[in-house]
Amino acid sequence: MRTATDKTSAFDALGELLGERFTTARAVRDEHGKDASWHPPQPPDAVCFPASTAEVARVVAICAGERIPIVPFGTGTSLEGHVQAPHGGVSVDLSRMDRIVALRPADLDATVEAGVTRKQLNRLAADHGLFFPVDPGAECTLGGMAATRASGTNAVRYGTMRENVLAMTVVLPDGRVIRTGSRARKSSAGYDLTRLFVGSEGTLGIATEVTLRLHGLPEAISSAAVSFASLHGAVHTAIRTIQSGIPVARMELLDALLMDAVNRYARLDHAVAPTLLFEFHGSAAGVEEQARDVAQIAAELGGEGFRWSVDAAQRERLWEARHHAYFAALALRPGCQGWTTDVCVPISRLADCVLETQQDLEESPLLAPIVGHVGDGNFHLVMLVDRDDPADQAEAQRIHERLVARALAMDGTSTGEHGVGLGKRAFMAAEHGDALDVMRAVKAAIDPLGLMNPGKIL
Amino acid sequence: MRTATDKTSAFDALGELLGERFTTARAVRDEHGKDASWHPPQPPDAVCFPASTAEVARVVAICAGERIPIVPFGTGTSLEGHVQAPHGGVSVDLSRMDRIVALRPADLDATVEAGVTRKQLNRLAADHGLFFPVDPGAECTLGGMAATRASGTNAVRYGTMRENVLAMTVVLPDGRVIRTGSRARKSSAGYDLTRLFVGSEGTLGIATEVTLRLHGLPEAISSAAVSFASLHGAVHTAIRTIQSGIPVARMELLDALLMDAVNRYARLDHAVAPTLLFEFHGSAAGVEEQARDVAQIAAELGGEGFRWSVDAAQRERLWEARHHAYFAALALRPGCQGWTTDVCVPISRLADCVLETQQDLEESPLLAPIVGHVGDGNFHLVMLVDRDDPADQAEAQRIHERLVARALAMDGTSTGEHGVGLGKRAFMAAEHGDALDVMRAVKAAIDPLGLMNPGKIL
Repeated sequence: MRTATDKTSAFDALGELLGERFTTARAVRDEHGKDASWHPPQPPDAVCFPASTAEVARVVAICAGERIPIVPFGTGTSLEGHVQAPHGGVSVDLSRMDRIVALRPADLDATVEAGVTRKQLNRLAADHGLFFPVDPGAECTLGGMAATRASGTNAVRYGTMRENVLAMTVVLPDGRVIRTGSRARKSSAGYDLTRLFVGSEGTLGIATEVTLRLHGLPEAISSAAVSFASLHGAVHTAIRTIQSGIPVARMELLDALLMDAVNRYARLDHAVAPTLLFEFHGSAAGVEEQARDVAQIAAELGGEGFRWSVDAAQRERLWEARHHAYFAALALRPGCQGWTTDVCVPISRLADCVLETQQDLEESPLLAPIVGHVGDGNFHLVMLVDRDDPADQAEAQRIHERLVARALAMDGTSTGEHGVGLGKRAFMAAEHGDALDVMRAVKAAIDPLGLMNPGKIL
Repeated sequence: MRTATDKTSAFDALGELLGERFTTARAVRDEHGKDASWHPPQPPDAVCFPASTAEVARVVAICAGERIPIVPFGTGTSLEGHVQAPHGGVSVDLSRMDRIVALRPADLDATVEAGVTRKQLNRLAADHGLFFPVDPGAECTLGGMAATRASGTNAVRYGTMRENVLAMTVVLPDGRVIRTGSRARKSSAGYDLTRLFVGSEGTLGIATEVTLRLHGLPEAISSAAVSFASLHGAVHTAIRTIQSGIPVARMELLDALLMDAVNRYARLDHAVAPTLLFEFHGSAAGVEEQARDVAQIAAELGGEGFRWSVDAAQRERLWEARHHAYFAALALRPGCQGWTTDVCVPISRLADCVLETQQDLEESPLLAPIVGHVGDGNFHLVMLVDRDDPADQAEAQRIHERLVARALAMDGTSTGEHGVGLGKRAFMAAEHGDALDVMRAVKAAIDPLGLMNPGKIL
């Protein structure tokens, strides 16, 4: 059992190790007890800011010695309560570990400390004609993105963190440091620990370095936008585009409610109608061909006002609606809480999943725009909820449960990219059945004391 | 402890369950105690041929009840002693599970029983304009390919089994049946059990069904071949091709020794020189552009006689050398044993790795052609060894150990695609360090009795 005395001695040891980079100050704890989600804040008992893998290992060993929970923290932009500390303990903020250890253009890879953000990496990569494609929107750390198996708008073409992490340095729950994988592009040398730690949300250890695949910047980029009289036409255009094998780099759906919200929020004048936004990467001829093919599909399915451009400024304008989507949605109901959730289904079921969800929403008092990385079969609801109204909360819960059940019945998943955290735990048994026992066995084998980010996933 | 009585009662139960699909006949056991590798045969005590997931589950439960080792078997084409039974036990031959459960063109995926072979799947997929790209050469089962994380010639473009398995049905070591993953293209819903079981070589359970990604057949395919005065020029052409971002579908290296062997074996008249073979997939204009780009790189690096073709028959001729490589190599030394091995390194180190290995071979009496999926940084040696000559065996062992040590020193892996089996176990500690303890912990958690394919990987 942990006692106050134990915690004091551990905190003394952490203070000795880290000096001012260890704190129990209320303001810092509060900052580290919440992410960008609707989940209530739960501050840790202390926060530390290690600056090296060796320091993280010492922090973990000290905490493990006194059975103190450990909660890894990147930038706090996660969406399912990943950084909350329901069991208290120490938040390990990795933001001081922000060095790009190596960028190797000849191998199209880079090794970064866990606190490096994707934009930071991309600024350096661009000097070499390269980029790191995984883009969940927020300026999150690459360690956090690995932990949540993040993806985002580019995943339809370039894959998610699952496909783009080659190797990791991980501090295990007992303070030992391991490296998973190598820089070889493929390997059959035993269990795929890299993929096991990617998406484990800090419940198996703390990633302190990540080795990532980089990709060549495309020779040409073009963008396009097209609107539809119905959500049906928009979703079916997305499905047909994927089924036709057109290698879109991004394909985003925004529903009419969201387009209206974006127009008001950012003073734009888009059609208030379900809209698809596209980005194409390739040769100059290639991106034109892709846009032409998509335009034809869209036209057959009722698309109107197809606009495309290879000009960067024009591209920014076309995509501006998407960039404002989240805050524009929140502004639809000032003072509300944005309860975001995401599911992912096989592409052939996407239309049913989106349209049945839309039907639910039409029959509900709840306001909840739909936005999606529809090329992956992945979409989000942003439910706008009064946090002080139990009826509102209950309705959001009901819509949420129906959405997840629908996705699972379609052989999809309860979360395509946000992760489990606190928010999707209740659905794990329905999604995984007895496979959940295997996850529990793995967790118990690697973290027998249950100290790593307790209360998350399992 | 297992006793003869226990085994008898288990064998009785298996006989009752499976009738003639359970046997202890010597000839069948012998067939199941060896793969396509140099590892000595080690027959199991019995062989069974279940025809359904439920039967596999019963077989596993019966064996587990009496602590009898279980060795999954596909077609026996593995290359590191994966199907040998060093601890005896029951070989579970999955060849009767050869149904394509579902092929879903709209989702570009298929679910197959583990005993379906890749050519069998591709015959059906072709009717829908689709194909399954992972191609290790042999006519192996898709379950076996998942188990060894197989890849092959197409992996440079389409990925390995790691990237192409969406979900699996797995019989756990206690006979329970789980499904890992869903048909969603991406998910952040907990630990990535699919990737954990892919490459686990039957040591964590038996995959009975596999859900796979399919890809659209390319609009156009072209092939090319080019030879070089030196291995140096050939390897650097491969490296530059990858670094230039040319999306080759296949890029294979054969050294001069192997080209000579192929000429003799198949009565061909290729230049006896290091040779690169290419395949390009894309639009008609795209494959021509790719070939032109590669031709220019090759020319700058001393390539001679660059030939390319979009004609299918011509393509067959260009690739014929590659198809005959293994048996042509064996024919260089009639009666010899072919000791095959593979390593994989970051692409920037490929030249050093291949050329230092070639140097080793020049200073050795050993005959060992080099052939490689060089686009991945992956290559093979086929060491031609007299199995009755200890000096020959020792020399092969020495060359092998130097090769693996070299790959690991370059931040590569001891096996890019063959797997660990019996043959690479000795290198696991050097490759993984303390991460090997994590693999052992996972193994103990999922297979606490150590009955699943014992003696492999760990």
